[in-house]
Amino acid sequence: MGASTSTGQRTQRAQRADARRNVEAILDAATRGLRRDPNVSIADIAAEAGVGRITLYGHFKTRADLVEAVLARTIGHAHAVFDGLDLSGDPVEALATLVTSSWRVIEQHRGVLGAAARELGHERIRDVHDDILTRVGHLVERGQAEGVFRDDLPGSWLVTVILTLMHTAAQDVDAGRLAAADAGLYLVRTLVAALTPPGSIVPVR
Amino acid sequence: MGASTSTGQRTQRAQRADARRNVEAILDAATRGLRRDPNVSIADIAAEAGVGRITLYGHFKTRADLVEAVLARTIGHAHAVFDGLDLSGDPVEALATLVTSSWRVIEQHRGVLGAAARELGHERIRDVHDDILTRVGHLVERGQAEGVFRDDLPGSWLVTVILTLMHTAAQDVDAGRLAAADAGLYLVRTLVAALTPPGSIVPVR
Repeated sequence: MGASTSTGQRTQRAQRADARRNVEAILDAATRGLRRDPNVSIADIAAEAGVGRITLYGHFKTRADLVEAVLARTIGHAHAVFDGLDLSGDPVEALATLVTSSWRVIEQHRGVLGAAARELGHERIRDVHDDILTRVGHLVERGQAEGVFRDDLPGSWLVTVILTLMHTAAQDVDAGRLAAADAGLYLVRTLVAALTPPGSIVPVR
Repeated sequence: MGASTSTGQRTQRAQRADARRNVEAILDAATRGLRRDPNVSIADIAAEAGVGRITLYGHFKTRADLVEAVLARTIGHAHAVFDGLDLSGDPVEALATLVTSSWRVIEQHRGVLGAAARELGHERIRDVHDDILTRVGHLVERGQAEGVFRDDLPGSWLVTVILTLMHTAAQDVDAGRLAAADAGLYLVRTLVAALTPPGSIVPVR
């Protein structure tokens, strides 16, 4: 902040900082609220964030806008987690690592997916996951090139299978059909087998 | 119809027959309409069925009611198809037969699933599939008991995997990511591998 900064500029900057803090507080409150109750009201989210409903609606015009922003931030978290993973070794190990870590992110943000499924629809959810799908796609293609993953099915289909089953596990945990503690292992076992080339032995995990 | 049947009873019976015909015509028109355009309007469905909108709303109060009735009838078709299948032999062959036949039913009723996903939500769709899931579950359990399908994962999870991937294939065909003609084979290959016991060889299909 230079000596020439006017009071007006400082005020603007302070307002922008306030707005950013409000948005973060709203997204935090929405993430917690959706996990507790996928039908949590906007009023409850605003109250938990310590902002008024008018402030909340100033940032997010509709519930769908808010859910999409929460989903986008969740996917940002997933990228941060992926950035910290070493996926360069054996593709089966890398897949297990990727699935286990992704499941943890999904589990921490469970209600977000359920709300997104209702508010945004399947195709919009897929669009928001585009960069994630690309990252998973790179691993699948490498595994196919190394002969460790099957290549009798297109990589794009195998990526869809991975994304779909992870989201299904989240729905099953939400519905009480699956224990959250079991889901990571079930996913790894199912996906490792699904990607094994025909004529090869399914790795034991 | 006995000699004692009154004219009033005959008229009632004729009205009921008319109502049944109207309902069938509406469900046929809705099935065709949804396949063409998952967002097809109630007015278009009524016109195609040759009934007035008031008649249609007399049978189905909301679009969701109509979509649920179409889905229930589709599942009735699936049961009829399953009844005609011999699933008593090798579990892998039986799974391939079941998946291939089910895919044909799903493919013929594609828009129905998409509309149901939006109008009814994931859990209601699952409820409507309950008897189908039970039938698939019997095959999975037999395969597990015979050591042909993996038993390191619960049968209920494997049934979820089967249902989910079949519906995902339908979404991918709707979205233009997957050719309808490829989907049956992709599903059989993916599911046969997913159910192979760890330490065993994935059957080539």
